[in-house]
Amino acid sequence: MASMSISMSNFLTKSANPQNTPHFRLRPSLAIPQERSLGTGHHRTVQMKRISCALIEADGGGLVELLVKGEDLRDLKRREALEIPRIKLSRIDVEWVHVLSEGWASPLRGFMRESEFLQTLHFNSLRLDDGSVVNMSVPIVLAIDDKQKQLIGDSDRVALVDSTNNTVAILSKIEIYKHNKEERIARTWGTTAPGLPYADEAITNAGNWLIGGDLEVIAPIRYGDGLDRFRLSPAELREEFIRRGADAVFAFQLRNPVHNGHALLMTDTRKRLLEMGYKNPVLLLHPLGGYTKADDVPLSWRMKQHEKVLEDGVLDPETTVVAIFPSPMHYAGPTEVQWHAKARINAGANFYIVGRDPAGMSHPVEKRDLYDADHGKKVLSMAPGLQRLNILPFKVAAYDKTQGKMAFFDPSRPQDFLFISGTKMRTLAKNKESPPDGFMCPGGWKVLVDYYDSLAVPENGKVPQAVPA
Amino acid sequence: MASMSISMSNFLTKSANPQNTPHFRLRPSLAIPQERSLGTGHHRTVQMKRISCALIEADGGGLVELLVKGEDLRDLKRREALEIPRIKLSRIDVEWVHVLSEGWASPLRGFMRESEFLQTLHFNSLRLDDGSVVNMSVPIVLAIDDKQKQLIGDSDRVALVDSTNNTVAILSKIEIYKHNKEERIARTWGTTAPGLPYADEAITNAGNWLIGGDLEVIAPIRYGDGLDRFRLSPAELREEFIRRGADAVFAFQLRNPVHNGHALLMTDTRKRLLEMGYKNPVLLLHPLGGYTKADDVPLSWRMKQHEKVLEDGVLDPETTVVAIFPSPMHYAGPTEVQWHAKARINAGANFYIVGRDPAGMSHPVEKRDLYDADHGKKVLSMAPGLQRLNILPFKVAAYDKTQGKMAFFDPSRPQDFLFISGTKMRTLAKNKESPPDGFMCPGGWKVLVDYYDSLAVPENGKVPQAVPA
Repeated sequence: MASMSISMSNFLTKSANPQNTPHFRLRPSLAIPQERSLGTGHHRTVQMKRISCALIEADGGGLVELLVKGEDLRDLKRREALEIPRIKLSRIDVEWVHVLSEGWASPLRGFMRESEFLQTLHFNSLRLDDGSVVNMSVPIVLAIDDKQKQLIGDSDRVALVDSTNNTVAILSKIEIYKHNKEERIARTWGTTAPGLPYADEAITNAGNWLIGGDLEVIAPIRYGDGLDRFRLSPAELREEFIRRGADAVFAFQLRNPVHNGHALLMTDTRKRLLEMGYKNPVLLLHPLGGYTKADDVPLSWRMKQHEKVLEDGVLDPETTVVAIFPSPMHYAGPTEVQWHAKARINAGANFYIVGRDPAGMSHPVEKRDLYDADHGKKVLSMAPGLQRLNILPFKVAAYDKTQGKMAFFDPSRPQDFLFISGTKMRTLAKNKESPPDGFMCPGGWKVLVDYYDSLAVPENGKVPQAVPA
Repeated sequence: MASMSISMSNFLTKSANPQNTPHFRLRPSLAIPQERSLGTGHHRTVQMKRISCALIEADGGGLVELLVKGEDLRDLKRREALEIPRIKLSRIDVEWVHVLSEGWASPLRGFMRESEFLQTLHFNSLRLDDGSVVNMSVPIVLAIDDKQKQLIGDSDRVALVDSTNNTVAILSKIEIYKHNKEERIARTWGTTAPGLPYADEAITNAGNWLIGGDLEVIAPIRYGDGLDRFRLSPAELREEFIRRGADAVFAFQLRNPVHNGHALLMTDTRKRLLEMGYKNPVLLLHPLGGYTKADDVPLSWRMKQHEKVLEDGVLDPETTVVAIFPSPMHYAGPTEVQWHAKARINAGANFYIVGRDPAGMSHPVEKRDLYDADHGKKVLSMAPGLQRLNILPFKVAAYDKTQGKMAFFDPSRPQDFLFISGTKMRTLAKNKESPPDGFMCPGGWKVLVDYYDSLAVPENGKVPQAVPA
């Protein structure tokens, strides 16, 4: 899967050049002109100033990027890293380093120290020195075990290395504190039932200590899976929104294939924003790219599917930016949807579309959904630090048999509508059956069928890995 | 136990007269003069104005009392209550009605509706219409079962009745929503382990629905246990603090007998406040009076013990107000300590003494404390809506063998100190052994010995009830 080459002619991509300058393929010009009308009547003066004026401000007043700048300094840090204790990161740890490095979690400056961890667990928010409050609902923490703690000893910093022992980052002014896993799980998920995917993957067998500190990331995180060019940082996204003259950015988080119901919703949202007086609302179609559970469709297949949807013209490429959100998935419902929304503020989004049961899943033990389907929307609308964000509740779309297409559900004629659940969609694709015409563009559907086809081959009873190693 | 008569000559008490006018026994004058120097240079003008000027403001800007005023109106409400669906309250439910009725949970106007419940679980705080935030960390909710829900049907209000079918209150503009017990327990306690006392008592076997609404309480809640006169409302406490000319009020929450280490701490706190420039800091010694677990010392015995401590002169009655806090106990550590502090703001306290592991207990299943001993203090100091409150961390006191008395622990000579845990204290009292001289005043110790003596009599294997029925 990692070697699969994807050509996404309609996609916003960035070049792999070492200066990490974004390379946007949708417009012919690569250089961002210094003086250019934004279509909103404003003119650009200094680049950073323009960014903060035109788009919603990042949490805490400015994007906190934690990347070491310049090759010389990077080399210096790499050499320093050889002289301090080394901690090996898991794949999910690296994803969090990625998230932190680009400022998705601004104003966090590294893995959480205990005061931030406690505020996250108890208040889903952090109070800053100036008294203001930012949202922060999922712990971004790094676990170490007794042996690693002993190894660190009195050192006030550690090097973080990847699976091949390359130095990824340095963590300074460290604080080591207890990792109460039960409490962390209970307060994050509202249950301690066994079988929570993220807990099984990253908490239950993790060490009994957490290590927080200030993070310096040596170089941009790359996965080499052919999708790095879609992993735009918040700063790069902000650049692009400004380049397009966006006066509203509406974010759509997803971890599933896009069907025409989603497309209808996104198109309708843009229409509503235009009616509200915005001149150029831009959609951030933002699939989650980090850890997902084994039965979710893997990122690479989802990206192929999204490409087909754009190619098919279901969404307008001129007003749509597709990029990958690097966070791992918690499946923590109302707690996690706040993180999904907050991170998009940092990327410049001031509107957020929230669906039914966002970040939800089945209860791992009981026969019911883990969360009330309405709680995500309700909690999000009341969450501390998110008052600046406009929450757009998801209108329910279903297949309208009378029109032969996806349409907003009309409660006055329920008999005309067919609800196609994720489970049903997956079952159809697995069995190579077709959904009703108009449910999903044929090219997108074929990607799904191909994905399940690729799974069927081994027949060795092994559960497919959601995240390529 | 309920018939036990207690004479507490040093205690602040109120008369049982039907107008519910506080009757303070420490000062000869019952009437509060209309114009009187407060000792702070201020003069009283209108009573309510003076209260809000002299003491910390209640949460939300004013105390919300939910008592129906006047016998005529009460009779009317009692008659109305006969025509609407009736919900029978448990003892703990009545305690919450008590708490709500007097404004301890201001600005709550009744049992929580879902939006308040969700904010409490996720944020430990409520955002008010004006955008301000108040702390609210434990759910104050009323559970009903399927049958009761059916009985209520379309009614938009219900009558709440006690175990003898007397109408206690009316709940209006009701909202019924799902009671997800697992999620409630996980987010409140940070564990779902079986054996949490409050969960076993009031949640696990409670109904699957919660009912919120606006509460009108027909008459002040009375328990007829000889202790009602010590159950001063926040308004009554504020009156008393002002009458005494307090320019600082420091609250000490407790659910255990007072030993000389506590007394040292309270005396020392007053000294520190005087050094800070306050002229008349008053201590609110505030034992919790609602539900406690079976192995805690019952309220009536604790009150007897506190009386002896005051009689003994360990605490100065002139600068100490002893009253009962009517809340039931959750044993929810860092979550609950916020509630304990917030409620005392509403009673006029602007300083709160927080101990080691406040509201903590042993893990019900594992061999460890449920909470990190420092988390209560840390969480409290960062809690939303409590910034106005000054948190005073508990200095550790222990028995100093060189002085033969309780003293603040000196880490430079640990060998001189003896730590007497609650468990050790109880074991000594049970065995009628004496603690070291100076640990507790002899009169107070005798009460403890008498209490355990009273338990030993039945020898029938029955666990004693913590709360007299």
